[in-house]
Amino acid sequence: MAAAGENLKINAERLWDSLMEMAKIGPGVAGGNNRQTLTDEDAEGRMLFQSWCKEAGCSMGLDQMGNMFARREGTDPDALPVYVGSHLDTQPTGGKYDGVLGVLGGLEILRSLNDLGIKTRHPVIVTNWTNEEGTRFAPAMLASGVFAGLHDQDWAYGRVDAKGKTFGDELTRIGWRGDEPVGQRKMKAFFELHIEQGPILEAEGKDIGVVTHGQGLSWTEVTITGKDAHTGSTPMPMRKDAGLGLAHCLELVNQIALSHAPHAVGAAGHIDVFPNSRNVIPGKVVFTVDFRSPDLAVIEDMETRFKAGAQAICDEMGLGVTFEKTGGFDPVTFDEGCVSAVRRAAERLGYSHMNLISGAGHDACWINRVAPTAMVMCPCVGGLSHNEAEEITKDWAAAGANVLFHAVVETAGIVE
Amino acid sequence: MAAAGENLKINAERLWDSLMEMAKIGPGVAGGNNRQTLTDEDAEGRMLFQSWCKEAGCSMGLDQMGNMFARREGTDPDALPVYVGSHLDTQPTGGKYDGVLGVLGGLEILRSLNDLGIKTRHPVIVTNWTNEEGTRFAPAMLASGVFAGLHDQDWAYGRVDAKGKTFGDELTRIGWRGDEPVGQRKMKAFFELHIEQGPILEAEGKDIGVVTHGQGLSWTEVTITGKDAHTGSTPMPMRKDAGLGLAHCLELVNQIALSHAPHAVGAAGHIDVFPNSRNVIPGKVVFTVDFRSPDLAVIEDMETRFKAGAQAICDEMGLGVTFEKTGGFDPVTFDEGCVSAVRRAAERLGYSHMNLISGAGHDACWINRVAPTAMVMCPCVGGLSHNEAEEITKDWAAAGANVLFHAVVETAGIVE
Repeated sequence: MAAAGENLKINAERLWDSLMEMAKIGPGVAGGNNRQTLTDEDAEGRMLFQSWCKEAGCSMGLDQMGNMFARREGTDPDALPVYVGSHLDTQPTGGKYDGVLGVLGGLEILRSLNDLGIKTRHPVIVTNWTNEEGTRFAPAMLASGVFAGLHDQDWAYGRVDAKGKTFGDELTRIGWRGDEPVGQRKMKAFFELHIEQGPILEAEGKDIGVVTHGQGLSWTEVTITGKDAHTGSTPMPMRKDAGLGLAHCLELVNQIALSHAPHAVGAAGHIDVFPNSRNVIPGKVVFTVDFRSPDLAVIEDMETRFKAGAQAICDEMGLGVTFEKTGGFDPVTFDEGCVSAVRRAAERLGYSHMNLISGAGHDACWINRVAPTAMVMCPCVGGLSHNEAEEITKDWAAAGANVLFHAVVETAGIVE
Repeated sequence: MAAAGENLKINAERLWDSLMEMAKIGPGVAGGNNRQTLTDEDAEGRMLFQSWCKEAGCSMGLDQMGNMFARREGTDPDALPVYVGSHLDTQPTGGKYDGVLGVLGGLEILRSLNDLGIKTRHPVIVTNWTNEEGTRFAPAMLASGVFAGLHDQDWAYGRVDAKGKTFGDELTRIGWRGDEPVGQRKMKAFFELHIEQGPILEAEGKDIGVVTHGQGLSWTEVTITGKDAHTGSTPMPMRKDAGLGLAHCLELVNQIALSHAPHAVGAAGHIDVFPNSRNVIPGKVVFTVDFRSPDLAVIEDMETRFKAGAQAICDEMGLGVTFEKTGGFDPVTFDEGCVSAVRRAAERLGYSHMNLISGAGHDACWINRVAPTAMVMCPCVGGLSHNEAEEITKDWAAAGANVLFHAVVETAGIVE
């Protein structure tokens, strides 16, 4: 197997054109996309992707979760396929690149292999994972989660959207429920290209993020109970102000996250105040603390210290407090061999690069449990994502796809 | 004019029975009342009050704002009337006593004067002020505000409820729009009996609050602008977390209020976080700071220090901040003579008492601008009000009404 030379490049214009063509399906209201999973628009996007894959000479596999597998054959019938891919579904007010770049970047690799007449020993398969976003049917990364054995398939089928429709019914309705059992495919490796969805690469002026870890996450829903009381007629010492308890707890979250700098983060994005009236002291506050770190011990330490600290704060203020863990997953350490292949690809191509820890969840985080996996990231403007204004440059997209190309070709092996 | 003797008492049972009878009109869902202003239930409550007043031999005046004036004649045709009263309207989930005690306590005084065959030199008039609560048609104390010249009557007529109906149309619809011009009545004095709506009297074990001042109020709506960003992929130093800015500002509000102990108070009862999603760092927070004090200079100091402090907090965090004053009124100093009459009444009757500052707004706060005014307060259980579970004891109600009785009789003058 020869290594790919530095001149081996994908067709940047064709990749960009395909991104723009896909973005016409399920347009958003502000220049982005609304192509939520298992909608008619999702089906239309799948049709377009399938037609492109057929034009590229691929066969298409479809499993019972609607995961799509476009296969370009290798020369060795016994060699395990190298998989790439991500997801075509979007947030309700999503961007044109989140997920889509990883799928169409994979397609572009197959097209480029065709153009260049390159045969690989291992087959290369481009995957579109169903319902990565999780906004219509929670949780996120649902189908890759079933594939990796985290979720039961029947449970996934029973997930319900806001209108009471189930995942299973909607998958059947749009015509993309396949026969293939889920999770039986064996992989030589899985590579996912994705936009960073954060500000680091752009701020550091790097072309490529070599993703070494995925952050683990812990969500704790906290309920502080004080006493509703009139803001005018209740003296300060007689108040049980749940809003003030919230303030102390938010500062505690911040201090704890900073104590594990630079990789740990913590905040509360969700805060509800009751009764939320200008002249009533808050009697109850519900908020969700989000702690993340690539180190499981750090996550556990943050959780423990927060609960003890918040309990002490509330005890001192005469407030009640309860904690409920509403979400979490362990940190991910991506495969050393795959990560090295990504880093070597960036170096071979002369792209500036740095190690990154993925703060968001990705299909790759689940697939890493069942196959050697790594991720490639490219910058996005201002770190903005899950927003119709999400933007990347053509050069960033090309650099990401070229690194993916080289990592895949090296792993799949060129047959001279 | 002779002072009333310590044996001069109202009929506690009759007062309580009337409270319970009125509470049958517009029952709430949890034992309290929903008798919002200008509803059919409000009209029914007014009818019952009017019928009781007629039975007590009173004439009934009705002005163009729907304010009701039940008059018991005095012996001196030239003497200015002594007014008492409060309001019969309730919150949507209000209690049976807030406001009602002040009106029916006034009626009980007229009934007791009749029972005892007492003639007063000055007429005594019991008032039901329209729309004290302000929940259906903002602002609160609307009709007493027009009476005292704070609001224009046409502006008041144009106030709109959540269904688009105007105050003026609804007042006409329920049949309680009178012909009498608003605000032309001259008063010898105005006394308002009200439940405390706070926890102080009960905690201190006092029967009676002698209200010397009404707190002034300042509402500032604060908007902190940060940047929405993914909680996982945005490192701590790159965040502009409006939620953390909120936390610092809430602590500042608390510190500033405590620096003016014991009478000043401060809190934020209204807090909205955007986009309020568990995995998005808050990009915007809007909250309303409520500062109150009986001293105008203290209110101004708190406002000024808060704005400067919040600006400094946000500047240091790279957050934007704007301030909008959304409400306010100056502190009220009640009439020294009327306050003394209330205090003397409590002492004569042997009730334990203490000075109070009213933290809530009351019709008396506006009437104090056009007539010598004072308030009598009785305890309420747990300080709870604006809540269907609002409760007082029969003894507390009787004590409050007896003090009102003595203050009124002393001011109106017994004719032997």
